[in-house]
Amino acid sequence: MKSTVAGRMDGFSPFYVMELLQRAKQLESQGRDIIHMEVGEPDFSTPDRVINAGIQHIASGEVKYTAAAGMMALREKIADYYFKTYAVRLPPERIFITPGASGAFLLALGVSLNADDELIMADPCYPCNSNFVRFFGGKTQFVNVNASTNYQLTADLIRKNWTQHSRGALVASPSNPTGTIIHGKELNSVIKQVKELGGHFYSDEIYHGLVYDKPAKSALEYSDDVFVINSFSKYFAMTGWRIGWLVVPEAFIDPAERLAQNIFISTATHSQYAALAAFDDENLVELESRKQQFARRRDFLYQNLVRLGFDIAVKPEGAFYIYANCSRFTDDSFQFAKDLLEQQGVAVTPGKDFGDNDANCHIRFAYTASIAKMSIAMERLEQFICQ
Amino acid sequence: MKSTVAGRMDGFSPFYVMELLQRAKQLESQGRDIIHMEVGEPDFSTPDRVINAGIQHIASGEVKYTAAAGMMALREKIADYYFKTYAVRLPPERIFITPGASGAFLLALGVSLNADDELIMADPCYPCNSNFVRFFGGKTQFVNVNASTNYQLTADLIRKNWTQHSRGALVASPSNPTGTIIHGKELNSVIKQVKELGGHFYSDEIYHGLVYDKPAKSALEYSDDVFVINSFSKYFAMTGWRIGWLVVPEAFIDPAERLAQNIFISTATHSQYAALAAFDDENLVELESRKQQFARRRDFLYQNLVRLGFDIAVKPEGAFYIYANCSRFTDDSFQFAKDLLEQQGVAVTPGKDFGDNDANCHIRFAYTASIAKMSIAMERLEQFICQ
Repeated sequence: MKSTVAGRMDGFSPFYVMELLQRAKQLESQGRDIIHMEVGEPDFSTPDRVINAGIQHIASGEVKYTAAAGMMALREKIADYYFKTYAVRLPPERIFITPGASGAFLLALGVSLNADDELIMADPCYPCNSNFVRFFGGKTQFVNVNASTNYQLTADLIRKNWTQHSRGALVASPSNPTGTIIHGKELNSVIKQVKELGGHFYSDEIYHGLVYDKPAKSALEYSDDVFVINSFSKYFAMTGWRIGWLVVPEAFIDPAERLAQNIFISTATHSQYAALAAFDDENLVELESRKQQFARRRDFLYQNLVRLGFDIAVKPEGAFYIYANCSRFTDDSFQFAKDLLEQQGVAVTPGKDFGDNDANCHIRFAYTASIAKMSIAMERLEQFICQ
Repeated sequence: MKSTVAGRMDGFSPFYVMELLQRAKQLESQGRDIIHMEVGEPDFSTPDRVINAGIQHIASGEVKYTAAAGMMALREKIADYYFKTYAVRLPPERIFITPGASGAFLLALGVSLNADDELIMADPCYPCNSNFVRFFGGKTQFVNVNASTNYQLTADLIRKNWTQHSRGALVASPSNPTGTIIHGKELNSVIKQVKELGGHFYSDEIYHGLVYDKPAKSALEYSDDVFVINSFSKYFAMTGWRIGWLVVPEAFIDPAERLAQNIFISTATHSQYAALAAFDDENLVELESRKQQFARRRDFLYQNLVRLGFDIAVKPEGAFYIYANCSRFTDDSFQFAKDLLEQQGVAVTPGKDFGDNDANCHIRFAYTASIAKMSIAMERLEQFICQ
């Protein structure tokens, strides 16, 4: 049978971690105890207030379509949140409620990226981000980054890598997989540089609530002419609700409205009602206390990985990942991950899921497991590397 | 400021009915009573069993990501449903749970349509269907249809209109806006024709539960090599839950899996749990009784529109729309709709939202309102056209 699969699918490589996940499930079904440090999802449940708000709406039976851009009440809550958190005044009309950050990426690139356009991104980065570019027939121009720039793009890197096909740049801060952030001054100059070159700037801020040392800066603090992708999944612990948001520049309100009407109709209504409660003060207090737990987990994991001989050039400041150099133990981190799972029942994500930049020497550890569980994982890891 | 909006957005025309909707809201806020016959959403609430299943899941707090293709239990339920309803045995692996039919279209065309490919569709048709083609850089080749073919494509029409750029054809049955269906024999020959030409066949079956005379045939009864788009929104009355499904040919399971992982992560988890209950026998009994109400509404509206002088060349067999020719009263149905709203407070959708084919002589009436409400609407309509 001749292949009739669309050309854009050629470069959609499967996530390598999926192979590990399947094997992990197999082992679990055989009774093995697996500690999951590969999962990009908070282990915390959605907070009660949010759950109750969702239930209350569903119980009304009126789970109908909302406006394509989302309920105005929720867009206003998010605008308030930007003011309280970043001192940024944002017209709610610029905020679009989307089916997760995934929907925000579809909308942002859908209205602004043409086929054959190139977007500059850091390598390593989260693989879906560049696959969205591919989805629209564009190309990602990966720029290798390292500890010297906090694993983030700089104005200089963008200027040097800009070509006639470049259409913009994307910064993810805190970064997945490195957990590193771009600091205010650098973010400002990156945005200025992209604007000077006539490009679009996309800021992936989905891990923004989860920063442990000093607050992360939003791109919106420096410019109105940026796309900002955010989500209720991570900080707000609402993964399965599939709700996120996109902030667009003024000039993109109308196209984003038209595109959302066509490709989403709207975002799940009960998820929107639930998200309304996410900004309640009491909920934010609970989320802050969880954040403290994540911070303690980060410190625990960081200290242990360093003790065991992993090289972590920059202590991560956010998200729930540590991207550890394992070259002391292997130059094939995928095989390392497979063996670690097989022999010790610890699941982690191999570097090659995040790009080509020294990927075979890196492993991503997610601290979406309790310190108690991670303690056992560290013992197992120690046995594994000392055998 | 130079326009930097992506080229694909050029052809995304706004829905004309949006202008009417805004005006309707304005009038309502001034205290006017508006009867909504423009809404493509069942007025029924989501059934209690489904609501309760959704609540039960949310209350557990574990609203986490599912597998990208959806929960296997739900895919199996849908496979069972195909067997019970159409006597088709479907491997659940071919069924992908999506964020509404919108997500099903994104997935289907994403894995199978290249930029510059053309898809053949009937005119009139639902505007989003062709906008998905545009989204991927493709083109829709509209073929005018009329009562002589039940407002559906035929094998002959497809053969005559096929070009070197044609990549496939899409049939929506029951059709939005006409409510007409393609009968089994014709569906079979259309699929055969498209396959003979080497194209993809897409079957939009989102109104399938809602047919009032004889059961609609699924494309899957005739071929395994088809894409079938369906949804929990219409028959199952779950619009705001944003959940639908896509059936893909065997050869597309792997690409669809990779694409879903990247562009959705997964579909809202509580919506999937709720949908599990949608197939319970008691729920199906309730849905059948609602279907009888829709059938009575169709008959009521049909008789009244004919009595008032609208020309309805084919009595619709499904969905909840009547596409009525209003050329006895106007050759500008958009203006007609605006005046009807302004003077009599009845909102309908102008033909031009569904294409160019004699659109200015057509109005779409949705019977998503009770007979009591529609009775008043018919009185107002009579006053309007007799003035």
